[in-house]
Amino acid sequence: MKVEVKRIVERIENLGGISDESHCLSRFYGTPAHKRAGDLLIQWMENAGMEVFKDSIGNIRGVLKSPRAKAKHFVIGSHYDTVFKAGKYDGPLGILLGIEVAQRISENAIELPFHLNIVAFADEEGSRFNTAYLGSSALVGEFDEIWLNRKDDNVHTLKEVVEKNEGNVTHIFKEYIPKEDWLGYFEVHIEQGPVLCEKDLPLCLVSSIATQTRVNIAWDGVCGHAGTYPMHLRSDALCAAAEFTLEVEKIGKAYNDKLVATIGKLNVEPNISNVIPGVVTHSLDVRSPDDLLLAEITKELKYKAETIAKKRGLNYHWEIMQTNPSVSCDAQLKAALSKSIKKANINSLLEIPSGAGHDAVMISKVAPVSMLFVRCKDGISHNPLEYTAPEDINEALNVCNNFIEEIIEISNTKNK
Amino acid sequence: MKVEVKRIVERIENLGGISDESHCLSRFYGTPAHKRAGDLLIQWMENAGMEVFKDSIGNIRGVLKSPRAKAKHFVIGSHYDTVFKAGKYDGPLGILLGIEVAQRISENAIELPFHLNIVAFADEEGSRFNTAYLGSSALVGEFDEIWLNRKDDNVHTLKEVVEKNEGNVTHIFKEYIPKEDWLGYFEVHIEQGPVLCEKDLPLCLVSSIATQTRVNIAWDGVCGHAGTYPMHLRSDALCAAAEFTLEVEKIGKAYNDKLVATIGKLNVEPNISNVIPGVVTHSLDVRSPDDLLLAEITKELKYKAETIAKKRGLNYHWEIMQTNPSVSCDAQLKAALSKSIKKANINSLLEIPSGAGHDAVMISKVAPVSMLFVRCKDGISHNPLEYTAPEDINEALNVCNNFIEEIIEISNTKNK
Repeated sequence: MKVEVKRIVERIENLGGISDESHCLSRFYGTPAHKRAGDLLIQWMENAGMEVFKDSIGNIRGVLKSPRAKAKHFVIGSHYDTVFKAGKYDGPLGILLGIEVAQRISENAIELPFHLNIVAFADEEGSRFNTAYLGSSALVGEFDEIWLNRKDDNVHTLKEVVEKNEGNVTHIFKEYIPKEDWLGYFEVHIEQGPVLCEKDLPLCLVSSIATQTRVNIAWDGVCGHAGTYPMHLRSDALCAAAEFTLEVEKIGKAYNDKLVATIGKLNVEPNISNVIPGVVTHSLDVRSPDDLLLAEITKELKYKAETIAKKRGLNYHWEIMQTNPSVSCDAQLKAALSKSIKKANINSLLEIPSGAGHDAVMISKVAPVSMLFVRCKDGISHNPLEYTAPEDINEALNVCNNFIEEIIEISNTKNK
Repeated sequence: MKVEVKRIVERIENLGGISDESHCLSRFYGTPAHKRAGDLLIQWMENAGMEVFKDSIGNIRGVLKSPRAKAKHFVIGSHYDTVFKAGKYDGPLGILLGIEVAQRISENAIELPFHLNIVAFADEEGSRFNTAYLGSSALVGEFDEIWLNRKDDNVHTLKEVVEKNEGNVTHIFKEYIPKEDWLGYFEVHIEQGPVLCEKDLPLCLVSSIATQTRVNIAWDGVCGHAGTYPMHLRSDALCAAAEFTLEVEKIGKAYNDKLVATIGKLNVEPNISNVIPGVVTHSLDVRSPDDLLLAEITKELKYKAETIAKKRGLNYHWEIMQTNPSVSCDAQLKAALSKSIKKANINSLLEIPSGAGHDAVMISKVAPVSMLFVRCKDGISHNPLEYTAPEDINEALNVCNNFIEEIIEISNTKNK
C-alpha cells in the first residue's frame, strides 16, 4: 500500500474513534469530540504544509497560497461532522484526500496559479440543529442570521455553541470567499448507494445533485371492528395507502436511473390488530437529477392519490414539505475530471446523479462545482458497516492528483 | 314509549354513568365501578322477582325457579364489563332485555317448565387481564386455574382481585351449571357492524360466531438511503407489505359475506422519511363462519406472501398467534327465534354470522346457543358514539318475550 493511502486509512480510523458516544460514532456539530477532530485536522493540514485557520463557524481551512496577484480560490472540501451511529468514511474521506493532494503539491513545490483551499466543513449533516450546510453556507456568504437562534435537544442555541467554541458570531458573516474570487469547487464522497458495486467500478463522475420533493400524505378512512364490518362497506385507510405505495414504486421503477421515489415513514391509527385502520399518514420522498421530470412525476403521483381516494370513497391530504432544485456539476470541471479518470487508467465512463445532498449544493450558489463518487461496500452508509477499500482510495487519490494537475494546466493556459 | 323500553333505556344510561374514569366509560373487571354496576344489577333483578346471587368470579345470577322436579336451566346472558372508552350498549342491552323477560314472567305468574336464569357476566371483554370470558367460563365449569395468577397493569393478580371483591377462589370451580342440566342459552347483543343499518332492519338472527385466525407477519427487506439507492436494486419491506395488504383485501372482497380479512396493525423500521423501509411487521386477522373456508384462505394468503417474498427477493416470517373454531347457533333454537321474529311482525329473514366473539362461544361448550343481533347506529361500537334506538329495543323486547314463550311451549310439548 502506498504511504499516502496508508496515511488516509489510518486517519480515517483515527477520526472514526473520536466520538461523543462510547458505543458508536457520533460527532455532532460543536461537541467536545467535534472539537478534538477539528484540532487533529488542523495538525494534519499544517503537516501538509498549509496555512490553517479555524473560522468562527468551525470550518478548518487550510490554504496553499499562489504567488500570483489576483489568484482565485479553488476549494476541495468535505465535512467532519457525522450523523448518529455513523460510518467512518462519510465526510472524512473527501477531506483526507484533499490534504494528500495539498501535501503532494507542497512537497514538490509546485507553483499554483490559484490558491488551493482544503476545507473541512463543520456541519453538513445538520444532526444537531436540523439545518444542513452550516459550514459551507458560511464559506459562500449564505449563512442566515436566523439560524443562530436555533436550539438543539438540550435547548442550547447555535449562538451559544459557537461562542462556547470560541467563535465570534459576527465574524461568521465576514469570513466568506467572495463570489468573484472563486475558481471552482471539488468534492470527493463515498457514493452511499450500490451502483458502483453493481457495476464493479471503484469510482465515477457525479453528473448532478438531485432535486428533491418531500410530501406528507394522510388517508382518512373509517375505523371499524375487524370482525363485524363486511369488506364491501369498508373504508380502510391502510389499503388506500398500500395501493398508493405500489403506484409510487411502479412509477419509480418506470423511470429507473432518472428517479427514486420512497415511502420511508408510515403510521397507522389506531394500529390495533382487530380494528380497521382509520387514518394512515406517510412520507413521500421523490428525487431526480431532472427538475422538470420531478415536477411532472410529483403531479402524476398526486393525481394517482386523488384517483385512489375517489375510487375508495375516502379523503386524502397532500402537503408538500420541501422542494429543492437540482444542481448540475460544471461541464468544464466534469471534462477535466473525466480526463483525470482516464489518465489514472480507470475504465469508468459512468456518470451518476447524487440522490443525497452534499456541501457542493451550497457552494454551487457562487461557484462551478464538481464531485467524484467512490465505491462503498454494498452501498451501505450512515451505518457503522460503512466501508471503502484502500484499493479504491488509492484510485481516488490518483484521480484527485491528476485532476488538480488538470486545473493547474487549464488555469495556466487561461492566464497566458 | 312502552314502560319496559323506557326502563331499559334509563338503565342503559344509568349503567353508562358508572365508570372508573371521569372523562369516558371504562368499567374493567373487579374495579369499584364494576362492583357498583353489579350491585345495581342485583337490585334490578330482585325487583323483577328473581332470586339473585353474585358468584365468586363476580357474575350476577338471577333465577326464576321452575316448580318441576329435574327442571333444566335456560340462560339469558350478556356482560357488564366494558372496554376502555366504551359505548353504553355493548353488554348491558342483553342483560336488561333478559331482566324484562323475567319480570314479565314473574308479574304474570307464568309457570316455567325450566329454571330461567338471567346472568350478567363479570368479564367478557378481558380488558383487565387479557383473557376474555372469565365470567361465562366459570358458569360452564371451564374456568382455568392458571388464570388466577394473571396480572393486570398494576401487577395485581386475578386471585387478589377476586378476594378483594369478597369472592372465594375455590368456589369458582364449584359454582357452575353442570352440562347435563343445561337446556339452552340465548344472548342479545348489538351487531357492532353496519349490516342491519345497510339493510334497514332492526334486528336479525345470528347464524354462527366466526372462526378467527390471527397471524403476525414480518417482511425483512434491506434499508438504504432513499436518495441514492436505485429502484431496481431495492428490497423495500413496505412495498412487499403493501402488495400483501392488497392481496388480503382482494381475497376478502372475493369472499364477501363469507369472510373478513384485516391488517389493522403495521409498523415500519426504521420509519424515517429518507430511509428505505428495512423491516415491516403487521397483523393479519381473518374471520369466517366457515372453518374450512378460513383454513383454505389462510393457506392461500400464506402462499401469496411466499410468492411476494420470492419475487421481491426478501424474507418473510409467518407466525399463527391464534385460531378459534367457529360456533354454530343451534338449529332448533334458531327456528324458535325465527318464529318469534315473524310473530313480532318483523320482516327480517336475514341471518348473519358474528365476526366478534361473545359469551355464547364459551357456553357453546356445554349447551345449544342462540343469538339475536340488534341494529346499532352506523355499525359503530367500542366507542362513546355507540347507539341503539328505543324503537329497535322495543322490537328486540317483543322478540325476546315471544322467544321465551316458544321455549316454554317446546319444553312443555317435550315434557308431555
